[in-house]
Amino acid sequence: MAGRLTRYLRDFDGPVYPVNPNYQQVHGLRCFPSLRELPGPADLVLVLVPAARVLSVVEEAGRAGASCAVVLSSGFAEVGAEGRALQEQLVEVAGRYGLRIVGPNCQGLLYRPTGLAATFTAAADGAQQPDSGIAYVGQSGALGGSFLGKAGDRGIGLTAWISVGNQADLTATEAAELLVADPNVRVLACYLEELPDGARWQRLTERAAAAGKHVVVLRSGRSAAGERAVASHTGALVRAGTAFDLLTRESGAVQVDDLDELLDVAVALTADPRPGGRRIGVITSSGGAGGLAADQAEAVGLVLPELDAAAQDVLAPLIPAFGSAVNPVDVTAQVIDDAGQFGAVCDAVAESDQVDAVLVVLTTIGGAAALEVAEAILRSAKRSTKPFAVAWLYSHEQIAEAGSMLRRNGISVLSTTNAALRLIAHLVPRGDRRAEPAPPRGLARFLDRPALTESGGAQLLDALQVARPRGRVVVDPAEAAAAAQELGELVVLKVQSPDLAHKSDVGGVLVGVPAERADSAARDMLDTVAANAPHARIDGVLVQELLPPGVELLVGVQGSKHGYPPVVTVGMGGTTAELYRDVASALGPLDVDQAVALLRQLRGWPLLDGFRGRPRCDVAAAAAAIASLSHAAVELGDRLAELEINPLVVRESGAVAADLVVISDSRR
Amino acid sequence: MAGRLTRYLRDFDGPVYPVNPNYQQVHGLRCFPSLRELPGPADLVLVLVPAARVLSVVEEAGRAGASCAVVLSSGFAEVGAEGRALQEQLVEVAGRYGLRIVGPNCQGLLYRPTGLAATFTAAADGAQQPDSGIAYVGQSGALGGSFLGKAGDRGIGLTAWISVGNQADLTATEAAELLVADPNVRVLACYLEELPDGARWQRLTERAAAAGKHVVVLRSGRSAAGERAVASHTGALVRAGTAFDLLTRESGAVQVDDLDELLDVAVALTADPRPGGRRIGVITSSGGAGGLAADQAEAVGLVLPELDAAAQDVLAPLIPAFGSAVNPVDVTAQVIDDAGQFGAVCDAVAESDQVDAVLVVLTTIGGAAALEVAEAILRSAKRSTKPFAVAWLYSHEQIAEAGSMLRRNGISVLSTTNAALRLIAHLVPRGDRRAEPAPPRGLARFLDRPALTESGGAQLLDALQVARPRGRVVVDPAEAAAAAQELGELVVLKVQSPDLAHKSDVGGVLVGVPAERADSAARDMLDTVAANAPHARIDGVLVQELLPPGVELLVGVQGSKHGYPPVVTVGMGGTTAELYRDVASALGPLDVDQAVALLRQLRGWPLLDGFRGRPRCDVAAAAAAIASLSHAAVELGDRLAELEINPLVVRESGAVAADLVVISDSRR
Repeated sequence: MAGRLTRYLRDFDGPVYPVNPNYQQVHGLRCFPSLRELPGPADLVLVLVPAARVLSVVEEAGRAGASCAVVLSSGFAEVGAEGRALQEQLVEVAGRYGLRIVGPNCQGLLYRPTGLAATFTAAADGAQQPDSGIAYVGQSGALGGSFLGKAGDRGIGLTAWISVGNQADLTATEAAELLVADPNVRVLACYLEELPDGARWQRLTERAAAAGKHVVVLRSGRSAAGERAVASHTGALVRAGTAFDLLTRESGAVQVDDLDELLDVAVALTADPRPGGRRIGVITSSGGAGGLAADQAEAVGLVLPELDAAAQDVLAPLIPAFGSAVNPVDVTAQVIDDAGQFGAVCDAVAESDQVDAVLVVLTTIGGAAALEVAEAILRSAKRSTKPFAVAWLYSHEQIAEAGSMLRRNGISVLSTTNAALRLIAHLVPRGDRRAEPAPPRGLARFLDRPALTESGGAQLLDALQVARPRGRVVVDPAEAAAAAQELGELVVLKVQSPDLAHKSDVGGVLVGVPAERADSAARDMLDTVAANAPHARIDGVLVQELLPPGVELLVGVQGSKHGYPPVVTVGMGGTTAELYRDVASALGPLDVDQAVALLRQLRGWPLLDGFRGRPRCDVAAAAAAIASLSHAAVELGDRLAELEINPLVVRESGAVAADLVVISDSRR
Repeated sequence: MAGRLTRYLRDFDGPVYPVNPNYQQVHGLRCFPSLRELPGPADLVLVLVPAARVLSVVEEAGRAGASCAVVLSSGFAEVGAEGRALQEQLVEVAGRYGLRIVGPNCQGLLYRPTGLAATFTAAADGAQQPDSGIAYVGQSGALGGSFLGKAGDRGIGLTAWISVGNQADLTATEAAELLVADPNVRVLACYLEELPDGARWQRLTERAAAAGKHVVVLRSGRSAAGERAVASHTGALVRAGTAFDLLTRESGAVQVDDLDELLDVAVALTADPRPGGRRIGVITSSGGAGGLAADQAEAVGLVLPELDAAAQDVLAPLIPAFGSAVNPVDVTAQVIDDAGQFGAVCDAVAESDQVDAVLVVLTTIGGAAALEVAEAILRSAKRSTKPFAVAWLYSHEQIAEAGSMLRRNGISVLSTTNAALRLIAHLVPRGDRRAEPAPPRGLARFLDRPALTESGGAQLLDALQVARPRGRVVVDPAEAAAAAQELGELVVLKVQSPDLAHKSDVGGVLVGVPAERADSAARDMLDTVAANAPHARIDGVLVQELLPPGVELLVGVQGSKHGYPPVVTVGMGGTTAELYRDVASALGPLDVDQAVALLRQLRGWPLLDGFRGRPRCDVAAAAAAIASLSHAAVELGDRLAELEINPLVVRESGAVAADLVVISDSRR
């Protein structure tokens, strides 16, 4: 490893001092016995000694006035308690000298502008490819090496590459911030194993966007259920990391699912255009390959619209009779040999108003012919404001040169139609925006108690201007019938107690009680509760109207956490919808229009919209309730854990919250 | 093209005679002015002349006693009506001489055992790779060329390769039959643009299975809605090609979604083992890469079980403290350098009872080290009865040799974890089996009329032993109330007419009529029908019991067609379930256990199984009805278009068909 390290360092733009008491020379460079004896100051110290000796080396580096040490050695937090202690000492020692640490247990870094290759990854070997403006940062050096190797394969040289390892000091997020601020970097590719702080992540992506740069992120550990909240119904339906996913999407950054996608999307983003929508024009020399792409498009959310008449008129004379001028446009093998004609086809498709992006699907075009086709594609892409991508189904060797040429110009070349379609789908901006926060409504007082009482809940709903069932609390069960008469033929009875969080578990809820029988029912209920929970204090009985049926929604908000905004989740209620987990989430706050848009994402939306001749529901009222809840969550900040209405009963006129759960964050 | 053709033919094991009146010699071979003047008989004639001259060349070939002509020329059915006529003539002329035609508009064929390369595809250029036992057949020569090129890339030589083009004579299915019968072929990869005849496809896959061979198929045109039947509710929910998909799965053949998968699955199938289930053991040298694989597994239906204690005991001493002996097994970069130790880890994981297949995920291991790791993997795979696959995330060049070595031994090497997981998921046999057909029940008489009357439907349900609502037809509305009294407090009234297919459209159905008001309701209904459909003949009014509520299923069968067995589809009924398109299909006939298994595939299954404290439904009764319907469809054969019960109301005891639709195939 040390040999590789020294070899790589020969390209560095400044002096390199090997330090090892056992050698006079290393790779032709004079070797020094210790950091104290260097002929000049060291800015960066690369540490590759056994873990037990790292502390003294870092101390020496600090004394020698170095500003940064890259600790490549392993044997720290990753090996258990003893290593964790050693790592803490490392940070402490470095802090004493104002020395920044990269690592430990990292694979180092590459920085193209100064020719620095301070790493031992074998992936840094081999021919240097032209600088692409793409930087990589990640916790995993091994995956980083894969990324680097795959980039070289595609003819892409990285501008910077940082493996942060155990992140004892420099974290992936901080490294990302530095890279985004670097004028040499145009696209940042991140591999994250832990969720970054939300506020910091947001700032990073906002800065990138403001500087016209792009961020692509691959996150692992997404299947872990660790972070999943289960206190509320909604909580159980929201995946861990949803706030990160939504925040990333909102900022225009792209989240991908695999390492190849991380690289291919990064390459595509070095060219600026992103598709304005999900409609693609497919141009191919093989009807079969075009057909495959058409089959696969739907699964990734892309559509192949029929081209407009104007485009078809331009295309018709360019394509033989046995080709096709609709979409996919099959130019046939005949046209692919004529770069000018093929380019004209690409132009016509790109210019169509029906198309947001262009996918070229090629098969057995290799060697010199491949380069000509690639140049035609590039010329057309440069004339267009829409993104181009290529699915090139042939041997690596035959298309290596043409592929590298295209990728260096920001046109991703994929080896399957599926991968190319997924790439384009990733490039489509999602454009989610949050609303402006509303003025505070003094809601904090509702979080003073760990659980809200029924009447507290009623007051909160009133403060939120969300309708609730009419009702009255009676202290004496003998008053229940009188209260019930005002509320309808059938009523709901609920025991009121500060000690009973789950009333129905102790028989404290009765639904559909005839009003005239409310007295005896209330008495029976109190007897049952007394038997089940003898020590619970009883404040009385809530007599509530029985809501007429409507479409039941659940509306939940998970409070701000780790710097992330609250996550608003809506879902279809009822048992069937529960089985299908029909939910949609967005970051709060939402205005009413955004709440409607969120509801429209539900597969059950037609039920609100007059499905099969049913009456239309009061979507405006439902959306107002959702928006109001979202603003409440913003106001309550990280003191709120969860807020949930389940169900929100939406009717032809109005939307009524049948139940409200509020959970404050006990850690505050 | 002709030059390439002649060049390729130099490797052929027999005499090659170029025919062209303008040359004396071609590529060092003596050239003949016409087929008549050859020095010996021609078995195979390759035709590469303009379309207008093809007929005379084929005629000449026939006269010269050739048995097969490969027509590479285009300008036939693919260019329109004139070309279609020319193609028909071609078939006619060839038929006269008993000459078989491959093509026209094809790219020819390769046959490794005799060194025959009768194609002009550029993909046949380049170094020959070792013979793999894999054969390709497909309509698209371009995609075939891609397949060939990609195979070469992976170090895989094809045993046979046939581009059938327009299939004027030799179809893809017949070519596939010939290849499956060939002892040199072990795996057949098919690319199909049209659905083959069902009976023929079944025979092909059965023969392959009997010979211990494997079939992999990629089908395009799957998004086309052309074939979709819409007569019944179920029909609209069943995708075109479902029968093909199910039949393919039943036979143990593998259907894939992309060209790379076609090749990678074919490579994996050259080694025999297929996973016994969906549990994989992941071995990696990078925690990050292993974590990605774990994240992605669920989406393709694979699971990573925790390894049993015995396996962990074996693994513990082989893995450093900072690695992991659970699943994914992280051996760390340290162990990967020791082939013996790494092999022992592979053995231990493969031997675990918790694991059906092994996925090795590698990152930056290249060159000579790569070959050592690959050999360790291969040795372990050979000791195991379980399939191995490798996701190797590195540059193509670094792993080319190791990858080729593994692939030639039936271990697929993929460049992403996602692709490797998809591959393994494809290898898991689905093991669906149809039941034995039951003895016929004389059902054909029910198809004599295009639409079944209410009483005909009732008789059919009785014949199928499926319960139906009790009811009685009254001719005089004044008898309705008397009939209703026997049926319950509330009844359903339905007008009876041979002329009204959609009774409810003309006001001919009333639901929930109080029994005592049945007379006047029946009279009112008949008046309404008379106003809406004045010419309809009226036979009377069916007075039917109102079914108490239960879980509503829809059960449909699409009749046998194009040689495919009937497709049985079950789905959750009701509007919510309809929105979620919760359906599952299987080939008929099904026995009762298979019908239960089909119901269990529904996401709404818990509703039948006592969801949230509800009573359990009579699943046995529902399954019996489904099985009975499936046997009926088998008995009725292709005279039946569709048979549907919607809804089948399943209750705590019993399952009742509330409505039956039978549609006979009018083309018979």
